Amino acid sequence: MQASERATPRHAPMHQFPVEDGELRVGGIPLTRLAARVGQTPFYAYDRRLVTQRVEALRAALPEALKIHYAMKANPMPALVAHMAQQVDGIDVASGGELKVALDCGADPRDVSFAGPGKSEADLHRAVAAGVLINVESFREVAVLARIHAETGYAVRVAVRVNPDFELKSSGMKMGGGPKQFGVDAEQVPELLAGIGRAELDFEGFHLFAGAQNLKAEAIVEAQRKSYELALTLSESAPAPVRTLNLGGGFGIPYFPGEQPLDLAPVAANLGELSQRAGRDFPGAELVVELGRYLVGEAGLYVARVIDRKVSRGQVFLVTDGGLHHHLSASGNFGQVIRKNYPAAIGSRMASSERETATVVGPLCTPLDLLADRMELARAEPGDLVVIYQSGAYGFTASPQAFLGHPACVEVLV
Amino acid sequence: MQASERATPRHAPMHQFPVEDGELRVGGIPLTRLAARVGQTPFYAYDRRLVTQRVEALRAALPEALKIHYAMKANPMPALVAHMAQQVDGIDVASGGELKVALDCGADPRDVSFAGPGKSEADLHRAVAAGVLINVESFREVAVLARIHAETGYAVRVAVRVNPDFELKSSGMKMGGGPKQFGVDAEQVPELLAGIGRAELDFEGFHLFAGAQNLKAEAIVEAQRKSYELALTLSESAPAPVRTLNLGGGFGIPYFPGEQPLDLAPVAANLGELSQRAGRDFPGAELVVELGRYLVGEAGLYVARVIDRKVSRGQVFLVTDGGLHHHLSASGNFGQVIRKNYPAAIGSRMASSERETATVVGPLCTPLDLLADRMELARAEPGDLVVIYQSGAYGFTASPQAFLGHPACVEVLV
Repeated sequence: MQASERATPRHAPMHQFPVEDGELRVGGIPLTRLAARVGQTPFYAYDRRLVTQRVEALRAALPEALKIHYAMKANPMPALVAHMAQQVDGIDVASGGELKVALDCGADPRDVSFAGPGKSEADLHRAVAAGVLINVESFREVAVLARIHAETGYAVRVAVRVNPDFELKSSGMKMGGGPKQFGVDAEQVPELLAGIGRAELDFEGFHLFAGAQNLKAEAIVEAQRKSYELALTLSESAPAPVRTLNLGGGFGIPYFPGEQPLDLAPVAANLGELSQRAGRDFPGAELVVELGRYLVGEAGLYVARVIDRKVSRGQVFLVTDGGLHHHLSASGNFGQVIRKNYPAAIGSRMASSERETATVVGPLCTPLDLLADRMELARAEPGDLVVIYQSGAYGFTASPQAFLGHPACVEVLV
Repeated sequence: MQASERATPRHAPMHQFPVEDGELRVGGIPLTRLAARVGQTPFYAYDRRLVTQRVEALRAALPEALKIHYAMKANPMPALVAHMAQQVDGIDVASGGELKVALDCGADPRDVSFAGPGKSEADLHRAVAAGVLINVESFREVAVLARIHAETGYAVRVAVRVNPDFELKSSGMKMGGGPKQFGVDAEQVPELLAGIGRAELDFEGFHLFAGAQNLKAEAIVEAQRKSYELALTLSESAPAPVRTLNLGGGFGIPYFPGEQPLDLAPVAANLGELSQRAGRDFPGAELVVELGRYLVGEAGLYVARVIDRKVSRGQVFLVTDGGLHHHLSASGNFGQVIRKNYPAAIGSRMASSERETATVVGPLCTPLDLLADRMELARAEPGDLVVIYQSGAYGFTASPQAFLGHPACVEVLV
């Protein structure tokens, strides 16, 4: 038994969307009715209640003083950002475009931070005028901000994004340690801090982001501890007291067979300790975690309709109206070395006992356009709705929508 | 010497764009001046003259009777498609959206064909009304087209896209052989042809497309021969004489170190033989090759500006305003298993003798945003222009432009 379980790893169970009358429900609405309301397939559907529940569960688990920020790069749909702005303590933006959306959605500029390598002069001007916190990533950015400060007289709020001298282990994406385009190498930070002081920019703290999509609590704990220690050391060179310490995120969600949800308890315990220490080491400062995917990823579905059912040399193909052009990551073409299936289901036949192995593809003339490769699914016919789970983050905007000129996808928050 | 050459494969030389006064010229215009004319970076620039030359070179090499079609999925920029429509014998479209562009660009519906799995009913209606040739990919499509024919009385021009019983060897992407979503399995084609006859659709021929991006002439030759033989066999079951035989494309261009340009001579010789045979086997029929990337890929550059120059732990990073969101394929995230560099250069410093190893990245907060990984380049400063060669196909539309909310990229045909 154990050997066969090892041989065929399974997807973590997807119970976030209830099933009634044989159909998934999103925001309480049966999937086929939602598709009719949207007026087209394919679409992304995000469940507002699931997002709220996730933030509430985090607040219950994490220390009360900890600030939770939403990294809107994960999903910048304006309605969702507006909902988020009411749930979380701040919004992190990655471009001038995202900054505009965050402000339009009612985020308080005091609670908005802006990170990203290669910020354009135009974007730095916008961020200064908006009064948001700018996570400085290079010496050049300090020089540009000094000039903007001298020219406009506006206060310039900065934190230093640090490229640490360690990596986040087991991370889906490493964003710190070794040579990196992100942030300023830890060993160069004291010199940068001196420059910030000379330029009379308003220093507020540090931003450390070691990596993303990590499912191993102990690796996150270690990165947070090391980030804290590094910030403590660097703060000795700071031109002003630390008022904010952003420890990044990296909380992962299970996508592929064999992956298990992150165990939040050790992370919460560690953040509790760090929060207490911060009370002594950085009096009055905010300790922040910045989460994107973890807040919204599991609350979203990608929904496509079966257009054709083909059997080619014994293999069943469900050809849908959606695919790689709308959901690049589920097709396996966004950072994955080895393609694996996202969890998927026939959302309009959740109670069917007739099951088969099928391959779900899109309408594009490329073999890359693959949503599920030989997966066990309910037997489906043209008209049925395929759902891809875990699609609330890095889906809609992270896909080449114009590819091959098919109709645009839409998003709905329910 | 030989051992070291083997150890470090190099990019094929990129001489298609001349250098004058230390700058690349595109369409005769110095790159910095072109950037000023475009009014922004990043942009894609396509050289009209190079496209024309490529078609002329093909016509000179290939048999006179052979028809050359442009598969516009490679690059659907309307100005380019309009230029192409005057150079080639037909346009192949992959969606209703592409069909509209082709017709707007002046393509004659008689010379337009439409392929793709999962064609929507709406798209099939549009294609029938337009009077273009529809490459049928499933039994369901025949049923839908029969209904449209009965309802409208319009003639319905069809060819059968065949999933052959062989694969294109050494192909970057296999699109035929084994179980596939493309076309109809060869062994099911006689039954499909009978259905086409019963439905009184206008049968015109066959479409066989074994794969794409092949640099081995002998593999293309073999696929074309086998495709021809298969079509000859299948034609015995056809309800009408074959009037068009589309042998697909698959002609590759060199992207990565060690890759050499396709040797066209054996392909041309083989097509010469097949063309003569077709004169006897399929009197009056057109023999067609369908090319996308091969016609436009080498005529295009992606151009981004250096925003920041950072040295992190001894490694030089050029942070540009362009990246993965505009050129997914060059970032290594579009079908590549192992990331390799596209050919690249500092287009504003082509004569510089000051060289260094640098990594070119974009402005996104993800380590995937990598345009060139530790490549030897002219030493560059902020303001310089990085060019990525071989970017005329599967670039602009095959990229997630909305990702992270940066300014849109533009295209220019010069």
